[in-house]
Amino acid sequence: MTQLKNSISRSQVEQLVRQALSQQLPGTSAPGMQVAPNPLVVNISARHVHLSQEHLEVLFGKGSELEIQKDLYQEGYFAATQTVAIVGPRRRMIPNVRVLGPCRGETQVELAYTDSISLGLELPVRISGDIKGTPGCVLMGPKGVVELEYGVIRAARHVHMSPADCAYYGCANGDSLHLRVDSPGCTTVLEDVVVRENPDVKLEVHIDTDEGNAVDLDHATSVKLYIPESCKCKHS
Amino acid sequence: MTQLKNSISRSQVEQLVRQALSQQLPGTSAPGMQVAPNPLVVNISARHVHLSQEHLEVLFGKGSELEIQKDLYQEGYFAATQTVAIVGPRRRMIPNVRVLGPCRGETQVELAYTDSISLGLELPVRISGDIKGTPGCVLMGPKGVVELEYGVIRAARHVHMSPADCAYYGCANGDSLHLRVDSPGCTTVLEDVVVRENPDVKLEVHIDTDEGNAVDLDHATSVKLYIPESCKCKHS
Repeated sequence: MTQLKNSISRSQVEQLVRQALSQQLPGTSAPGMQVAPNPLVVNISARHVHLSQEHLEVLFGKGSELEIQKDLYQEGYFAATQTVAIVGPRRRMIPNVRVLGPCRGETQVELAYTDSISLGLELPVRISGDIKGTPGCVLMGPKGVVELEYGVIRAARHVHMSPADCAYYGCANGDSLHLRVDSPGCTTVLEDVVVRENPDVKLEVHIDTDEGNAVDLDHATSVKLYIPESCKCKHS
Repeated sequence: MTQLKNSISRSQVEQLVRQALSQQLPGTSAPGMQVAPNPLVVNISARHVHLSQEHLEVLFGKGSELEIQKDLYQEGYFAATQTVAIVGPRRRMIPNVRVLGPCRGETQVELAYTDSISLGLELPVRISGDIKGTPGCVLMGPKGVVELEYGVIRAARHVHMSPADCAYYGCANGDSLHLRVDSPGCTTVLEDVVVRENPDVKLEVHIDTDEGNAVDLDHATSVKLYIPESCKCKHS
């Protein structure tokens, strides 16, 4: 590869572009203008299961451990090679539902409404981990069956944020943001996107397959996350 | 049933309630205030097929006619007793897809993205009837098979409106409106709701199952249809 003699570093290029833009676009050079600390990633969370170690061993045999099939975007989390079948009150089954790792204190099943209608379950929208009083189901593995008394939810739309992300978007843990997805013919604003702040996470919005398909995320041209405003122009 | 002696007509009741409200709620009695001419109905349009008479006869036999199973909300339209199976490029099948009547000039299949992903079809968002250049599929009936060259779409979100509805909402045929659905934990604004004006229709929004499940329409607490506004407070 030929090296350019008068090569310009990336930071020099950035500086030049910023200068040019600030001359052409009034407002972009305003003092205190913030730049997003991290790229906004929106991912679809397909139906999946979190297992307790106890249930893992009932389903896959004594001494079983989760095996990593694929790392997830968040560090330390993974899709396991293990899958289970889920059976609901209508005695229909969804086979091959992926287990996510690592194991958790309590088993939890996250489904889209399309799944829950097929199974015959009436699911509440819940933040992951908040599963008291939710419906149960039957989990089937190669070595055993777990009759789950509760733990099946539709996961609330949420966004994983670091403190720096929260500072940039002007929100705090537990707040609800809006996510606007521009998509040809089906642009949508998803409200109620719950902020889950943690110093160790990458900025990532999670929506379920129904939401991802409703907004045709695969063909989306832009996504924007923002705090709800009753009036964008800031007039009282 | 006992008839009340001093019975009050519905219009008198309405008049009394309006008077009481206009005294308590400043602004509601403003001159020129419009009342919606029709109730806003939002229905989920599940996957379905429209057949040409020719294709109906290939699939169900020479001389076949559609039989009414259930009338739809729009007068003259119905779910037929007939169903077909749809097969896509992944050679997976969706069985028992309902045929809607009456027959049309061209066969058209309307699927949600969840369906199209399962079948292996990449669907465009289209207004019903606008099917040139769309993917095809195979339709299977009890008496024959149709290899459809094109006609499979994701129907664009749309709203059937009479001229009176258009006048009330301030829109015209072909405009795009926003539909806000308030739902516990998953409130959503569906943009790109295309106005389809016709003197003979009842006011009705059609969304698909992905959209209906994304917003949990079954548990929605309110729906609101409105023209897009960049700034609600009307400041410049």
